[in-house]
Amino acid sequence: MEGTAPPRSQDFNIRVTYRDTDQMGVVYYANYLVYMESGRAEYMRARGWTYRDMEKDGYVLPVLHAECTYKTPAHYDDLLRVRAILETVTRVQVVFRYEISREETGELLATGMTRHAFVGLDMKLKRATPEVVARLLGE
Amino acid sequence: MEGTAPPRSQDFNIRVTYRDTDQMGVVYYANYLVYMESGRAEYMRARGWTYRDMEKDGYVLPVLHAECTYKTPAHYDDLLRVRAILETVTRVQVVFRYEISREETGELLATGMTRHAFVGLDMKLKRATPEVVARLLGE
Amino acid sequence: MEGTAPPRSQDFNIRVTYRDTDQMGVVYYANYLVYMESGRAEYMRARGWTYRDMEKDGYVLPVLHAECTYKTPAHYDDLLRVRAILETVTRVQVVFRYEISREETGELLATGMTRHAFVGLDMKLKRATPEVVARLLGE
Amino acid sequence: MEGTAPPRSQDFNIRVTYRDTDQMGVVYYANYLVYMESGRAEYMRARGWTYRDMEKDGYVLPVLHAECTYKTPAHYDDLLRVRAILETVTRVQVVFRYEISREETGELLATGMTRHAFVGLDMKLKRATPEVVARLLGE
Repeated sequence: MEGTAPPRSQDFNIRVTYRDTDQMGVVYYANYLVYMESGRAEYMRARGWTYRDMEKDGYVLPVLHAECTYKTPAHYDDLLRVRAILETVTRVQVVFRYEISREETGELLATGMTRHAFVGLDMKLKRATPEVVARLLGE
Repeated sequence: MEGTAPPRSQDFNIRVTYRDTDQMGVVYYANYLVYMESGRAEYMRARGWTYRDMEKDGYVLPVLHAECTYKTPAHYDDLLRVRAILETVTRVQVVFRYEISREETGELLATGMTRHAFVGLDMKLKRATPEVVARLLGE
Repeated sequence: MEGTAPPRSQDFNIRVTYRDTDQMGVVYYANYLVYMESGRAEYMRARGWTYRDMEKDGYVLPVLHAECTYKTPAHYDDLLRVRAILETVTRVQVVFRYEISREETGELLATGMTRHAFVGLDMKLKRATPEVVARLLGE
Repeated sequence: MEGTAPPRSQDFNIRVTYRDTDQMGVVYYANYLVYMESGRAEYMRARGWTYRDMEKDGYVLPVLHAECTYKTPAHYDDLLRVRAILETVTRVQVVFRYEISREETGELLATGMTRHAFVGLDMKLKRATPEVVARLLGE
């Protein structure tokens, strides 16, 4: 995880709470998808157009597909670094990839991806305008 | 917990999942409030007017106050019995009490209460009609 | 989803709670992984060897990889049918597939898969005995 | 919430995620107890003795009783300020109070309290040493 961040990516830190653990003493597997959600929210915030702004502009981004590969468990009170990387964006779909690592050691814990559709507030497919695509790209 | 159920009460069973546990090997404390939510939903379903029906009729019941007293921890895979008891209902407020026990042994694990306001879909206070009060009472 | 269940599969029902929804008014995407966890727990229970039994016998099944494809959203109070299907089991790994549908209509909402390693209570890889493999197969 | 923080208190910020909301478009009520947990963890971290340190020293602090009073709802993407205040600590019990407000406006959203017992890793009551009490007080 060391070195420079890739383009179109955003890092942020999150602390593992007790809620996030399970009785194996590690972070419960579904919670990595929650970290991924926060990761893409922070990606957008860093480009000056938050997920909340996007909703006000009439779009939501429901998840069509999600994957996560688990390498090493995270534990209570670990400070995680979540990196969200905008893989592709078209006027129809968006794909994010994620790398979740332990901040202190840089150890990579999990990788993931999510694929989303642009949808209007009526939950029907809605082609994104070029401006919306540009905002996600941070252009 | 033995004996007959009190009037205006409803029991239902829920199985503890891995998600519900934490690294102490017991159910995480906030999740009892989730069980309590399911308990009042089942109370209403048993009276033929579900929470979803109530929302369609223009009311929601946000929580004003919640309490839980923890006696003995619940563990993974325990089958719980959640008893929701309608304590009081007026045209303005509703109070539920809860008893959560281990089905197999009858042991009481936790007790709780929630106080709710009748609110319209605009999130403003809205007096319940006598019919709404009667439905909650199962009359 | 109609017709007979495939071999090595198990169905169970779960009711969507308020906790499971998000502000889009649908089930939050990470919660499908929770339903999948309950699905494989019920698969094992139906074969007379619960996940808790397995832990007592010295094994846990951490998730190596998880995927979920979302077709149609689930809503509050929907009764879901979760089908867990044991895809493969070796002495090293287990793969489950899942189909999540709306009980009332039979509509398929999501499909998923999880791959697991056999691990001992020390969290190190541990080859399953043939008896353990047979138990998962229900033989 | 403006002005100086009370003694024996600690503030920290947390951002509301999609997971934390429900279909009413507000933070689900049980999640305030999660924020309260993070609040007391940050209280301890600021005194140089984290909850994880405490566990290594042989204590856990299970919740005996929890309460929350909800004044105004929190929404998606709100930046919350969670203030944890150590109300009392004896060799047997600890009581924390909490104030949860919206960082941007200072508006108070909820207040709460939790009462905890000192327990050993065997989950039996264990009197805290004077050193443990002093650490919680930050002395």
